[in-house]
Amino acid sequence: MPQIAMLGSGFIARFYADSILGQRSRDKIVSVYSRRTESAGAFAMKYGCVHATTDMEVAIAHPEVDMICIALPNDLHEAAVMLCCKHGKAVMTTKPLGRTAAEARRMLEAVEKAGIFNGYLEDLVYTPKFLKALDSVQNGALGRILWAKSRETHPGPHSDWFWDLEHAGGGCILDLGCHCVEIARSFIGKDIRPVEVMCWAETQVKPIEAEDHAIGLVKYENGAIGQFEVSWTFRGGLDLRDEVMGTEGTLWINNFLRTGLEMFTTGKGADYVSEKAESNTGWLFPVGDELNDLGYNHMFTDVFNAFEQGRAPRETFYDGYVVNAILDAAYRSARTKLWEPVVLDVWRGRTGVTRDSHLTEYDQDHYLIKEETTHYGARKVILKHKTTGQITERVLS
Amino acid sequence: MPQIAMLGSGFIARFYADSILGQRSRDKIVSVYSRRTESAGAFAMKYGCVHATTDMEVAIAHPEVDMICIALPNDLHEAAVMLCCKHGKAVMTTKPLGRTAAEARRMLEAVEKAGIFNGYLEDLVYTPKFLKALDSVQNGALGRILWAKSRETHPGPHSDWFWDLEHAGGGCILDLGCHCVEIARSFIGKDIRPVEVMCWAETQVKPIEAEDHAIGLVKYENGAIGQFEVSWTFRGGLDLRDEVMGTEGTLWINNFLRTGLEMFTTGKGADYVSEKAESNTGWLFPVGDELNDLGYNHMFTDVFNAFEQGRAPRETFYDGYVVNAILDAAYRSARTKLWEPVVLDVWRGRTGVTRDSHLTEYDQDHYLIKEETTHYGARKVILKHKTTGQITERVLS
Amino acid sequence: MPQIAMLGSGFIARFYADSILGQRSRDKIVSVYSRRTESAGAFAMKYGCVHATTDMEVAIAHPEVDMICIALPNDLHEAAVMLCCKHGKAVMTTKPLGRTAAEARRMLEAVEKAGIFNGYLEDLVYTPKFLKALDSVQNGALGRILWAKSRETHPGPHSDWFWDLEHAGGGCILDLGCHCVEIARSFIGKDIRPVEVMCWAETQVKPIEAEDHAIGLVKYENGAIGQFEVSWTFRGGLDLRDEVMGTEGTLWINNFLRTGLEMFTTGKGADYVSEKAESNTGWLFPVGDELNDLGYNHMFTDVFNAFEQGRAPRETFYDGYVVNAILDAAYRSARTKLWEPVVLDVWRGRTGVTRDSHLTEYDQDHYLIKEETTHYGARKVILKHKTTGQITERVLS
Amino acid sequence: MPQIAMLGSGFIARFYADSILGQRSRDKIVSVYSRRTESAGAFAMKYGCVHATTDMEVAIAHPEVDMICIALPNDLHEAAVMLCCKHGKAVMTTKPLGRTAAEARRMLEAVEKAGIFNGYLEDLVYTPKFLKALDSVQNGALGRILWAKSRETHPGPHSDWFWDLEHAGGGCILDLGCHCVEIARSFIGKDIRPVEVMCWAETQVKPIEAEDHAIGLVKYENGAIGQFEVSWTFRGGLDLRDEVMGTEGTLWINNFLRTGLEMFTTGKGADYVSEKAESNTGWLFPVGDELNDLGYNHMFTDVFNAFEQGRAPRETFYDGYVVNAILDAAYRSARTKLWEPVVLDVWRGRTGVTRDSHLTEYDQDHYLIKEETTHYGARKVILKHKTTGQITERVLS
Repeated sequence: MPQIAMLGSGFIARFYADSILGQRSRDKIVSVYSRRTESAGAFAMKYGCVHATTDMEVAIAHPEVDMICIALPNDLHEAAVMLCCKHGKAVMTTKPLGRTAAEARRMLEAVEKAGIFNGYLEDLVYTPKFLKALDSVQNGALGRILWAKSRETHPGPHSDWFWDLEHAGGGCILDLGCHCVEIARSFIGKDIRPVEVMCWAETQVKPIEAEDHAIGLVKYENGAIGQFEVSWTFRGGLDLRDEVMGTEGTLWINNFLRTGLEMFTTGKGADYVSEKAESNTGWLFPVGDELNDLGYNHMFTDVFNAFEQGRAPRETFYDGYVVNAILDAAYRSARTKLWEPVVLDVWRGRTGVTRDSHLTEYDQDHYLIKEETTHYGARKVILKHKTTGQITERVLS
Repeated sequence: MPQIAMLGSGFIARFYADSILGQRSRDKIVSVYSRRTESAGAFAMKYGCVHATTDMEVAIAHPEVDMICIALPNDLHEAAVMLCCKHGKAVMTTKPLGRTAAEARRMLEAVEKAGIFNGYLEDLVYTPKFLKALDSVQNGALGRILWAKSRETHPGPHSDWFWDLEHAGGGCILDLGCHCVEIARSFIGKDIRPVEVMCWAETQVKPIEAEDHAIGLVKYENGAIGQFEVSWTFRGGLDLRDEVMGTEGTLWINNFLRTGLEMFTTGKGADYVSEKAESNTGWLFPVGDELNDLGYNHMFTDVFNAFEQGRAPRETFYDGYVVNAILDAAYRSARTKLWEPVVLDVWRGRTGVTRDSHLTEYDQDHYLIKEETTHYGARKVILKHKTTGQITERVLS
Repeated sequence: MPQIAMLGSGFIARFYADSILGQRSRDKIVSVYSRRTESAGAFAMKYGCVHATTDMEVAIAHPEVDMICIALPNDLHEAAVMLCCKHGKAVMTTKPLGRTAAEARRMLEAVEKAGIFNGYLEDLVYTPKFLKALDSVQNGALGRILWAKSRETHPGPHSDWFWDLEHAGGGCILDLGCHCVEIARSFIGKDIRPVEVMCWAETQVKPIEAEDHAIGLVKYENGAIGQFEVSWTFRGGLDLRDEVMGTEGTLWINNFLRTGLEMFTTGKGADYVSEKAESNTGWLFPVGDELNDLGYNHMFTDVFNAFEQGRAPRETFYDGYVVNAILDAAYRSARTKLWEPVVLDVWRGRTGVTRDSHLTEYDQDHYLIKEETTHYGARKVILKHKTTGQITERVLS
Repeated sequence: MPQIAMLGSGFIARFYADSILGQRSRDKIVSVYSRRTESAGAFAMKYGCVHATTDMEVAIAHPEVDMICIALPNDLHEAAVMLCCKHGKAVMTTKPLGRTAAEARRMLEAVEKAGIFNGYLEDLVYTPKFLKALDSVQNGALGRILWAKSRETHPGPHSDWFWDLEHAGGGCILDLGCHCVEIARSFIGKDIRPVEVMCWAETQVKPIEAEDHAIGLVKYENGAIGQFEVSWTFRGGLDLRDEVMGTEGTLWINNFLRTGLEMFTTGKGADYVSEKAESNTGWLFPVGDELNDLGYNHMFTDVFNAFEQGRAPRETFYDGYVVNAILDAAYRSARTKLWEPVVLDVWRGRTGVTRDSHLTEYDQDHYLIKEETTHYGARKVILKHKTTGQITERVLS
């Protein structure tokens, strides 16, 4: 039963607090730090914190606190993590871990050197649908995974600092791509090494320096391909979809815009419907329970259980570091227009993985290309001769 | 933090236990009663109960137990409730409350006389989508509610006793209709009196005495109409859908078969996908998190919070009694082929409610029938003269 | 290649003309009749008719015309049909055929006595999805049909006469129920006799005498049940859905609001999106091709092919008569609150049909209630003893 | 009313013939050419051709023929087109036009030199949903187009020659990418020059030399980006989806797997359900009318109307040439791993198009980044100072 200090009191800190206090209802947020006194006070009032401060270290060092939740702008993560190390407190950090892999690696090394519990708060690999889907994938329902795509687009973040390249460290690639990269990586296998990245990124709509739209491809050592589609220019709400193709199946996940609740209203009486919805009239598609459907509940359950059981959570700083390394390569690729290697000085997964063969034996002389039932009911195979390479059809019955 | 005794160890008892132990992770099932020793033992082992018994009263009277969860066949509810009253223990009962309104009323009167906490475990008015939808309805997003339909159909229950008229007290009307009736009643308003019921019911497919398919209409005092569609003969999984029409909007809820997770598999590797799914190959539509999506988590949160706060939960024995009274009328109607009155000796809602007027004023002389934009962009009204009754069109611009 | 006279120049006449001229592009509308000169002229101009008149008989009798298309208000159908009989011209009539079965029967007897080709323009049993679904049902993909429901609801018709009980002969039951009844009847089997009807109908919202919302159940001789849900008070567009349950499968058709084209727009630039849409902003769901998706193209293809081949089309005046007989029973039931018999003085389908047995043999001593795979992978059967009636479970493996 | 010679008698020739003879029902296929006598004969029998031959030139030169439909493997297009030029017959060719842009350009120059009518049979820019969507885009409903993605994946083609690199000229990029490229190009604007292409392509599953999975990005001169996702390794049927993002809206098209007809069947009685479906049991998603839903009907209507009216159809050999040029760049990119320029020796669209500004004026000193309604109902803007670049939030009310 951890006693938590929350660093930050904004949008994401409140989402976290709602989940932490709502879901297990036995964890406590003891202390809150915010840069502004009134924000810290309002947060403490709402979430029943006994302590509020504008001094980050005081919150971290508070004697009743044993776990720190970092919900700060990206440029403040590293300093906060270092203070946790200094005081030997368990730490969990919002995504992305760093603005760059270099930052992430310093944080990783620091927490490991300090020997403290560390969790990476990547909520979207904890959504109920993702967990169910991953379970099916790991049971083999889709066969060998060929491609995993994740898409997160919406009309842009709520707070000013996201739009500021210095504070945020990047645009939608860093803000949203970190989710997508970890989702695809999870389906393909977190022990499979990401090799190189190609990324297109542009500032198409917003008057900012960072990219507001990007598409990237990530090659993995086993021949699988990951894909991310991210944007701050999407109109229509929060679009959160994943797709996976395997040799034996297909998966489609829609986490937000089409989940089975559909409402039409002429507009009388409706107000806040859901995060990042753009309208209160016409056809609306709220989710039932945002905290659960976005993965917050299952994430904190895993983190707190891990903390209590003395094990690592599903997502650690190491995962955050790998994600940052992939995103670094994406940013380089967007500039150089080349496939850029993923630089991973620390790699803890499998090595020397080779690609699976694409030669399916049919008989002594042939490979099987395809087997199908024709529309007139016959079974047909298309074969390739092993030596001549000739391709032929055979109708079997 | 209630200490619970679970009466029953079957399918529904296990669903309840998974939710109770999983969701708040601070409540305990201290004791379990089952008719068979080995079932009680297996349940106790799995859910960490310190006490298991084949004597129901012993479980109820256990000194560490302060709340009883009845998860027994319908014909055993009344006896169990009476024992809770005798020992002054809080009680929550699975649906339906009774096999008849007479049974339900005796239970209601007993718990109220004994002054014990009582909860009616109607999970489907606690699904996240239902709660979100109800909130919108209560905020007026749909205007005045005209019609609320709920549908629950599947290929039939898992346990033998459901199919036995004596134990179950009825067929799919009692088993599934209790959910549907309470869902529709909630949208229309639990303070609005249900007046009369028309029901068609048949045994179309199964070799049983009870009905395996039924459709019913429930008239409410304010002119709104409820509808239920229930069956044990549906093919394709568990179909759980609600629809609501109001003067200002429409609501569609799909709780199970189309929730945003879609999977195709050739069948290698997949096994148990979800409750009442009929297939493990082809296109499958599992939900992410059955316990949450079927309402169990939000239900027990409400019940336990209510217990701790000394208030009544959203659903009490009184609601169970009203539902039984409506279902009684449905059974009578299926036999008599008449609209049958809902007999409610105890009515605690509003009385003397009149129907809303359907006369919308347009100007001094006319009512407004319809206002629309034509496909050539003009605004058009259709009016009825107040005294002559003549209906005319006017193109406004 | 029929030469057509169109009677009527309103909304439905234009839909018909768009389909007739667009789809085969070899049929001609030679003449048009309208009550108002300017309407007849505008229609003739748009659709290239060489003749326009305000005298209905002149249009029918026109020497180049060999087929009449009746697209008039309901109260004018009979007079128009009688003129077609008088002049021996082929006739096709919009739905419903009559305002009552008595009217419909007079029309049926007249065209048959006159020996003229007659088609009933029930477009919704010609939608591509319906045709595909019906084909599957007739091939046995759903097994024995148990229930067929059709729903048509929208915010009310475009023209004034629909709202006037005298001209229209009824409200949404007659206007929309005629579609739903024929859809359900087609799935159940047009040769199966409809026996009795229960209907709830109310005027919930509109200041009119006719019903604006109704739900009806139609029992068929073989034990199947049809259902219609119709309303002029629905908000959100044109809701056209069918559902069918059979012993071996399930069918869901959505003809209009969810067909695979989804659009979000802030509202700049969009105008007429689709029939009966209520909004031009937010999420919109236009169909690709209204004429095709609503069945007009396939309907006229069948009617014209039938005419040229000297056979009857799929839907004739006889079908229109049966539908009117069912709707008459619905109206009586709404008044008497009783199940009302369907009075069919002329019945051309099967007679003496009995209900299928619901006793499925399992072994010499037992009927099979249910067979399922449990979540722990075992196969389980639930059986009923033939003589004792006892219900038991058996786990097979 | 063209008199047609069909070159080819396989899968696509039959699809074309079904549409040509079914839809307008006034066009005739006079002659058919096939490499094998029995195929030619069977086709002629089925589609009522008065002439069948194994000599391609004889079919083309047939005196009653005035339009040639090329439905041959890719490597035979050029020779067939040259014969059409020689005999001065109108020609329409299945997709892709050529195996390379060089081939396509020779065909383009030949038909233009010969002055013959030429149509490019790209059916997927004629699906009803695409046409409706394009209309909305051209009306401005989505604002400025930022991204257009098209996806076509399925388990692989039906005929042997597709799998043979020599005959086909490529794998899924050429077979499916030609569709996707023209769809995206149409949404972005066919007068906007495609500039460069990045493509990933692999042979992941099939024992073939050509690629069986590819993803490509196409940059356009105005800053918009096109995307294609193509595969012959998809499991689950024929996945045909398009997505478009604009500054004012979003479009999602599903042409095949989710169109509003959903069927569950245990498998008794169902047989051929739809093109490239992989299963006949469980949940199935047939389209209502394949010929119409895949665009064939609207395509031939346009081509024949264009022919009769002496105008060019929507899609000509020039479009086929542009598509081939883009696909050539994709193939080069898959090899070089670089963004490859689209080489268009012939360009007939706009030139010198510049990118739209992404600076939205808010007031004299600021650009507008975002405007939103917060969940507590206030209106908030996020602004960027024009000179200092500082980003700030303002709550307006």
